[in-house]
Order: sequence, then structure tokens, then C-alpha cells
Amino acid sequence: MRALEERITREGKVLEGNVLKLGSFLNQSIDTAFTAEMASEVVSLFAGERITKVLTVESSGIAFGFAIAEKLGVPLVFAKKSHASNQSGDVLSAKIHSYTHGNDYTATVGAEYLSAGDSVLIADDFLATGEALHGLMKIIELAGASLAGCAIQVEKSFQNGGDELRRAGVHVESLAIIDSMSPEEGVRFRP
Amino acid sequence: MRALEERITREGKVLEGNVLKLGSFLNQSIDTAFTAEMASEVVSLFAGERITKVLTVESSGIAFGFAIAEKLGVPLVFAKKSHASNQSGDVLSAKIHSYTHGNDYTATVGAEYLSAGDSVLIADDFLATGEALHGLMKIIELAGASLAGCAIQVEKSFQNGGDELRRAGVHVESLAIIDSMSPEEGVRFRP
Repeated sequence: MRALEERITREGKVLEGNVLKLGSFLNQSIDTAFTAEMASEVVSLFAGERITKVLTVESSGIAFGFAIAEKLGVPLVFAKKSHASNQSGDVLSAKIHSYTHGNDYTATVGAEYLSAGDSVLIADDFLATGEALHGLMKIIELAGASLAGCAIQVEKSFQNGGDELRRAGVHVESLAIIDSMSPEEGVRFRP
Repeated sequence: MRALEERITREGKVLEGNVLKLGSFLNQSIDTAFTAEMASEVVSLFAGERITKVLTVESSGIAFGFAIAEKLGVPLVFAKKSHASNQSGDVLSAKIHSYTHGNDYTATVGAEYLSAGDSVLIADDFLATGEALHGLMKIIELAGASLAGCAIQVEKSFQNGGDELRRAGVHVESLAIIDSMSPEEGVRFRP
């Protein structure tokens, strides 16, 4: 999506350690109109797929996932990273390594919120090694639901997670794919 | 908002310790169309107020905050509960006690995302003792911005946070106000 690439080029800050800061419109301060445009793009990329729910993991995928789910007219389910007192009953869980935070966490979804008849689109802001997607895919599998695909805002192809999933037959759509980046040279997109 | 009260009565589960579980439409699995309706109600309740940004804290306020901000045509800014590698530079921070999780955390917002000219609407899912709102109000104050008001989905009036803020002159609008609740008797709303 050209508009997203332009925005990343203009506003993104590449930090040490393969970290791309997009706080001005994608993470901390969310450009809501632009997020809605990105969601429309996702809806057209997955046209024809049966999608009954959108699944993400808290918290930076929630706004994007919400915008997609609203346009599709389906619920957004989000996995939690910690157990809260307002969760009760059976949970579906998967251990995920966070590249951004440098730690492991257990993502959980109440078992009643995903079921065998569901066809689930995973939405997330970043795709790097694919750890979060694999965790969410495991949760979908535990629910006995099926995976419609993965919608990503920014993929870092040099961390290989996206292409591995595509080779495994998963329908992955990333609105911007970064082939390389560095603090000195900035960001280069897949042609 | 009558539709929200009905939904809470029908689907809410009151757990021990003043915990109300609304995972089926408001927290874990988010009814996106209904969230958009609630956001429209907020927009009409704050009609005439100047609002340049909506502020929430991750993660359960993000969907509601996003829906409001999108309708207002302004950015959604969310405070983070932990420091991530994609945050850099100056941050505005406030310590907040979480009633749901039973711990303290530091909420942070990148200093570049709120500024002195902003008039900020705070959005959150629950209002109980008001700890989270006070933390977000402190962040707005640190930014030199002004507070337009607080939009809440569910207020537990018996924990007093909402009425204390109203007495202090803050424009607080809660779409449902619960005067009492218990696992045995369920939920009673403010008449």
C-alpha cells in the first residue's frame, strides 16, 4: 500500500536492533482515518474469504483489528498477555516470545470466544519472526476453528516470518513489506 | 444508554470482589457494531466541546477510544503500561493502581504525542475508583494540554470515582452507571 510506505518513509524512525518506531500514526498516536483506510484495503485483499472473527493480541494490534472487524461486521477478539480478575472459566493459551519487549508471555483467550465453526482472520501491526502469529494460530487450532489468513500493517521480510508462513500455505497480506532498514540508510521496501 | 444496560443485564457476569465480566461484547470479544453505536452516543454527549485527541490506556479502552476518535476525526493516543523498545525520547508518565489486576503500573505517553494546544477526551471501558483517570489526567497536565472530559462505558458508582470527579468539575459521561451489584442479586443501574 503506497500510502503506508510513504508514511513510513516520512515519519518512521529506525532505531538500533531492527526496531522501527511508527508512534506518530501507527502505535502510540493512532491516525484513525488512515487506520480505517488500511482496514478497507485489508477487506478488499481478503474479499471472498469467509471471516467470522478477527483475532489480535493486546495491545498494538487492537485499533487495526477493530477497524477491520467493524468493516467486516464481525467481532474482534483479542488475546490477553496476562491473567486478569475479569477472566474466568476455560482459556485457550499459547506461549509467545516478544521481539519488541525481549521476553516471553502467555497469550490467552477465553474459550467461549472462539469456536469450531469460526473462520478467523488474524490482524497485527508488525510481522517479524512470526512468533505472535504462530501463537495466535495455535489458539485458533485449540479452538478447533479455521484460519482465514493474516493481515499485517508492516512486515520486516528480513526476519523471515512472513515468507515462512506463505510457504506453509498461509494467506498473509502485509500492507508494507520492508526488505532492509538501518538507522543510517533508512527503510527499503520490497519492490 | 438503555441498550448497554440491557446488554450488561443479559450477558454480564458478576464475580466476587466487585468484578463484572463483560467479555462477550466489551472486553475480550468486542462487538464492533455496538462499540460504534456507543461511540456515536459519546460524540453526541460531548457535542460542542473542542476535542483534538482521545486518550486511553492500553488495552481494554483502545477499541472504544478508537471508535470515538474515528468519529471525531482526531487521533487516538494510548498510554502504555510498560516501556517497549519502540519507545524512545521523552515520556510523560503517571503511576496508576489497577483494581482489576491488583497491582501498580506506570502509564507512559511519548511527549511528542500530546502538546499544550490539545484538548483531550479521555476514554476508558470501566470507571471504579478513578485511579486510571487520575493518572491520565496527570499526563494531560504534564503535557500542558487541557481536559475536555471523560467518556466511560461502565461506571461502578459505589466505588465513588465518577462522582468525585464530577464534584471536582470534570465532565464525566458514563454510558451505564451501576449503583450496586453482587453475584446473587446481579446488577442494579442508577435510575
